[in-house]
Amino acid sequence: MIARLCLVALGVWHIATPVLAEDYIVQNQDEYAAAVDVIEAGDVIILTNGEWRDFEMVITGEGREDAPITVTSQDAGQVFLTGQSSLRIGGRHILVSGLVFRDGYSPRGEVISFRRNKDDVAHNSRVTEVVIDNFSKPDRYESDYWVGIYGSGNRFDHNNLVGKTNKGVTLAVRLDQEESRNNGHLIDHNYFGPRPVLGSNGGETLRIGTSRYSMHQSGTLVENNIFDRTDGEVEIISSKSGGNVFRGNVFLRSRGTLTLRHGDDAVVERNVFLGGGKDYTGGIRVINRGQTVRDNYMEGLRGEAFSSALAIMNGVPNSPVNRYVEVAGATIEGNTILDSRRVGFNVGADDERSAAPSDSTFAGNLLGGIEGQSFLEVYDDVSGIAFDGNVVVEGGVADELASFDRRSIAMERAENGLLYPVDPKFAALGAPRDLSPVTLDQVGASWYPKPGDDVLFGASGETIAIAPGEDALVNAVLVAKDGDVIQLAPGEYVVERTIPLDAAVTIATAPNDAGEAAVVFFTRPSLFELREGGNLRLDGVTIDGALAPDSVGNSMIRTTTFPIKSNLTVEMDGVTVRGLVVNKSFNVLTLGKSALADAVTIRNSQFADITGAIVSAAAETEDYGQYNVEYLDVTGNTFANVGGPIADIYRGGRDESTFGPFVAFANNQIAGSGLAPTNGTGASLNLHGVQIANVTGNQVAGSAPFRIVHTVGTPITAVTGNQFAETGELVLEELNFDGPHRADVSGNVFAEEDAE
Amino acid sequence: MIARLCLVALGVWHIATPVLAEDYIVQNQDEYAAAVDVIEAGDVIILTNGEWRDFEMVITGEGREDAPITVTSQDAGQVFLTGQSSLRIGGRHILVSGLVFRDGYSPRGEVISFRRNKDDVAHNSRVTEVVIDNFSKPDRYESDYWVGIYGSGNRFDHNNLVGKTNKGVTLAVRLDQEESRNNGHLIDHNYFGPRPVLGSNGGETLRIGTSRYSMHQSGTLVENNIFDRTDGEVEIISSKSGGNVFRGNVFLRSRGTLTLRHGDDAVVERNVFLGGGKDYTGGIRVINRGQTVRDNYMEGLRGEAFSSALAIMNGVPNSPVNRYVEVAGATIEGNTILDSRRVGFNVGADDERSAAPSDSTFAGNLLGGIEGQSFLEVYDDVSGIAFDGNVVVEGGVADELASFDRRSIAMERAENGLLYPVDPKFAALGAPRDLSPVTLDQVGASWYPKPGDDVLFGASGETIAIAPGEDALVNAVLVAKDGDVIQLAPGEYVVERTIPLDAAVTIATAPNDAGEAAVVFFTRPSLFELREGGNLRLDGVTIDGALAPDSVGNSMIRTTTFPIKSNLTVEMDGVTVRGLVVNKSFNVLTLGKSALADAVTIRNSQFADITGAIVSAAAETEDYGQYNVEYLDVTGNTFANVGGPIADIYRGGRDESTFGPFVAFANNQIAGSGLAPTNGTGASLNLHGVQIANVTGNQVAGSAPFRIVHTVGTPITAVTGNQFAETGELVLEELNFDGPHRADVSGNVFAEEDAE
Repeated sequence: MIARLCLVALGVWHIATPVLAEDYIVQNQDEYAAAVDVIEAGDVIILTNGEWRDFEMVITGEGREDAPITVTSQDAGQVFLTGQSSLRIGGRHILVSGLVFRDGYSPRGEVISFRRNKDDVAHNSRVTEVVIDNFSKPDRYESDYWVGIYGSGNRFDHNNLVGKTNKGVTLAVRLDQEESRNNGHLIDHNYFGPRPVLGSNGGETLRIGTSRYSMHQSGTLVENNIFDRTDGEVEIISSKSGGNVFRGNVFLRSRGTLTLRHGDDAVVERNVFLGGGKDYTGGIRVINRGQTVRDNYMEGLRGEAFSSALAIMNGVPNSPVNRYVEVAGATIEGNTILDSRRVGFNVGADDERSAAPSDSTFAGNLLGGIEGQSFLEVYDDVSGIAFDGNVVVEGGVADELASFDRRSIAMERAENGLLYPVDPKFAALGAPRDLSPVTLDQVGASWYPKPGDDVLFGASGETIAIAPGEDALVNAVLVAKDGDVIQLAPGEYVVERTIPLDAAVTIATAPNDAGEAAVVFFTRPSLFELREGGNLRLDGVTIDGALAPDSVGNSMIRTTTFPIKSNLTVEMDGVTVRGLVVNKSFNVLTLGKSALADAVTIRNSQFADITGAIVSAAAETEDYGQYNVEYLDVTGNTFANVGGPIADIYRGGRDESTFGPFVAFANNQIAGSGLAPTNGTGASLNLHGVQIANVTGNQVAGSAPFRIVHTVGTPITAVTGNQFAETGELVLEELNFDGPHRADVSGNVFAEEDAE
Repeated sequence: MIARLCLVALGVWHIATPVLAEDYIVQNQDEYAAAVDVIEAGDVIILTNGEWRDFEMVITGEGREDAPITVTSQDAGQVFLTGQSSLRIGGRHILVSGLVFRDGYSPRGEVISFRRNKDDVAHNSRVTEVVIDNFSKPDRYESDYWVGIYGSGNRFDHNNLVGKTNKGVTLAVRLDQEESRNNGHLIDHNYFGPRPVLGSNGGETLRIGTSRYSMHQSGTLVENNIFDRTDGEVEIISSKSGGNVFRGNVFLRSRGTLTLRHGDDAVVERNVFLGGGKDYTGGIRVINRGQTVRDNYMEGLRGEAFSSALAIMNGVPNSPVNRYVEVAGATIEGNTILDSRRVGFNVGADDERSAAPSDSTFAGNLLGGIEGQSFLEVYDDVSGIAFDGNVVVEGGVADELASFDRRSIAMERAENGLLYPVDPKFAALGAPRDLSPVTLDQVGASWYPKPGDDVLFGASGETIAIAPGEDALVNAVLVAKDGDVIQLAPGEYVVERTIPLDAAVTIATAPNDAGEAAVVFFTRPSLFELREGGNLRLDGVTIDGALAPDSVGNSMIRTTTFPIKSNLTVEMDGVTVRGLVVNKSFNVLTLGKSALADAVTIRNSQFADITGAIVSAAAETEDYGQYNVEYLDVTGNTFANVGGPIADIYRGGRDESTFGPFVAFANNQIAGSGLAPTNGTGASLNLHGVQIANVTGNQVAGSAPFRIVHTVGTPITAVTGNQFAETGELVLEELNFDGPHRADVSGNVFAEEDAE
């Protein structure tokens, strides 16, 4: 290839001319189509550098092993497929490289498809050094796959798949045709870059097969890839077919697990999971028969239940294909798990999942939990698992596992960056010494940069000081860049237009000795509109609704009605919001359809005289399992005379593919709130389908009750240590669980009861 | 001006240079700003031809009556303000002309504002020959005014305001400051072009004042304007202040009325209303004291109730300012009303509106209704109205008006295009002979074209014949233009991507003697996505869902998740749709948030084995009075095994500013439908808040019941002549009306009852 490209670089191409007998240099889609019509084995089509817009590229033909048909770029990384573009590959021995998909999205079901159509499926073909970067459909709930691998003998390697924000698996191996089974595909050295929380089912990064075809062998090898912050949903990898091998992959700060969901005889070995202490980071979840999990290394994982470092599940007796086949014949040995929250046996045990693992071994594992916390847990019968030579260095151990050797072992970090016992007598325990985790520079296209750490507010930006004046605040925000801090001198600011926000911007009161306030008034139905890339932090400012117009749907901050691909963050600290009363339901923050906030944090702030909700995150009412906020933290605020709920969170549907929403609601003072007749929830705090809720230390007076509705899964709710005066009893409902409500509601004081 | 512009045309301008002492020719926003800083009375700023993007233009200064400050275009109509642009005028004696706002929208609350800010309001200023063309905010529910007139002595004339699609009055005269009252504004010779149905409150074309300031005099003259298809909502003009005059205006095929909503002593004279037989076209609605309605001409109006040709309302005793002040001292004389559905007295009479008109006269009017239909109606006491010399030539007359002279009069159309009695003895009856209705060429900017008639499908386009083949149908639609017909040869079409539709396109089966079908399969969650400008007619084709993927939210046709400004139309005739069963709730047509269909028409079609709804128009669930379809017509179809409702229509909220939704549901055969557990409505037809529903001649077997919920207003529902077998009783609810359900439910047969 190198030689060819050098020749090309010397040539002249105004039309599609074969420079050598087998090279077609094409400058536009027509020339490309003409070339595809005549290519033969050994030929090369070279796309000239530049932007190829709305290019639905198709390549097919009969290459040979020693003479593939090649499509590549003039210079690697200098050919950009933009707009509504896609690539379909049929035929045999096709090689594609050097392309970048960005600034657009596929109009089809896939960006790259290893088949042209059902009748022309790719075999023995390869896609290498191709980038798909933020090439997501605009609406997060419109689905596609970025890569669909069909056929057999295909290789997908050294590619970058970064920033998928819409629904649908990033890379799917499809088995729906006979010729796509026992496929022997190789998926290696790819960089699976950050995939943000989707807020819905369909956020897997890699899936092999589906439940429908899970009785078939796939035989796919997934090796030496890096999964970096692939946080889409609970399954990072979903293996749904037989005979797959996952070897030497590295998972960095990724929520969820490698899940052996359907299909037997997988081998999961020599993978490294580094959670970095991030929420919901997990390891491997084991279901089905004949699974081997060995020589893996895990550290800093914080998931539990389905997202444990290791979750050995209970199965369903004679399980239907789409439920849980019982674990039998599993071999789990030689793994190291350190500083992780949970290893669970019989996970998911219930009336339906009543079949415990059988005929399995769990041996030679080095296990370390978190000091003072439960670590190894057992939820049913573990007699079908032979335990041998396991050592626990930290964390609580279930009684059933009393045979485990519990001891302290000195550890040191080796050259490969992983922890090993110092004492050579433990050399055989846990993951092997010769692990050599693949590094970032070994995966993906070497010529394409990988994203750095996420930084939102303040750290990287400039501080821009402004004073009151016509359009002063608007003009400052319009030119602000990510990380900028706009400091408001004390005084009154009247904002005459809704401020569109497409960067991460902090708006703060400038420090002043007199402690004078910067007060912002606004004359439009909203002060801020969050758009693509928009994140907002308010720090110490006062916002007054006195000049807002009487318009239905008023909200001080709201998301654009256009779909937003990016997840957003809103923070308020030391903020005063007052007088949003011009109409009946004036909210502070409204998250609309197809918008997902990673985090909404409100601390040390004061809200008074507001007719609507403080946080409305309840736009996804179709019960598709979609929702609007992942983390909500409302702590240490005062709320007086708020007509709607302080927070209205809705996550409907029955699927269990998401971690959130998560709500912390603590140490707030609430008076006279939730009582507006327009408050359809009838509550001053309304949590529907929240997965983890901590509601504690609040003082509530003369307000509507708190309402908590559990939907699916195993929601964890604590409503504890709150004081309620002249406020109704908690309203607790279970929609899909027979029995009393599962919330912990201890330690609350209801003043009316005391008075009796 | 002409002379100046000629000089300019000879000049050279590379920088902002005063060619004459008082002319500043500016080429960009910086030069403009520099010029504004130095202008004085008599000076002219000339914007060079071309596009001025994102231009928030401001002009202020102290002009003089004989020497205004002028801002104009190099050539009239050749200066385009695009993107996020606006104009604010302060000062005195400012003149602005020659600008075109298009391809964008105002980022503020107004496009043109007769004030720079609260402290700098325009007086004695004029905007003339300025065009605002489709300069609407993208989201129909985000509000603005196109023109806000403040201050005093301002003139707004010969302007074009065309195609406002978002919420908010097109032109508002504001009285919220003292200096804006008794304003003497003149609004004349403007072309108020088509404003489509908004589907919500806030679609008025002209409003003067608000209820809050309605006790103040405005004294605004609205003269010789044309209102062409201004269909936004029930009020075309809303007079909400005192002393306004409406003279010589022409209303062409416009839904709604000139409403004297608040404020006294208006004069409405010599206006011409030509309804052309269109639904909901109305004339004048009279409320409050001292109103004069004389010498107006009306023909072909089809409104009734609040949209009657004349509606004299009952008032509320001691009415609060935002309710209905009783009619007193009204003079209604010398009007001609012909071929119109209704003239109503005591309109709106109810427990609250119990005060009948007093001290009023109704004299010398020439009145003609529709043959064989009720015309003059009385709903309460008319003793406070002195009737004299009124003649009725056609239509039914209420008993209370027996004194009216009922006779046939021969009429002829005069030179001015209006009908007058042939016999000269009636010369003094009705509208005067010397009416000279303003014509289209006399209003608006002469250099800017006015829109023609609306044509959607087929009439103007080409016929494109296609045969089955990879992407054949997609490629044909992608290049189709408004009116094109794509004819499908018989055979099977597999569509691999969702087809985006941004034109009015018909897809039809090519006529063939064998009557063979063209069958369309699709492999994405939707076959069609309706975008801005998209309208779809399906004619005779068969659509089969067998290849669709299992994805939540599947819908054969759906609207884009981006906001759509344009109203859309979907028609199906002789269509077969089958096998939408791959998941639990697979709809045929889904209208999403912020989308409004003018019409959905389904006739002579067959639907079988569909898990979701046929028409889902229920996305606006906030009860803001918004909805998704104006006219739904489902007639002569068969529905078998449809899991969801055949139609799910939702119009919540309590405001009464819209005419629709309107539903005709007739002569359909329905079997085994509405029974899916996922059908939350529990109905096979669910109409919530529909204003007029005719449900007749349907045969329903083994299905969920029909459900009809009345919300606000005076909904007219007839469920008559249907046969129900093994189907539940009608479910009828009234949400805001005490008493039994008001639907006419006569003549239905329930088979189970017969069997007993």
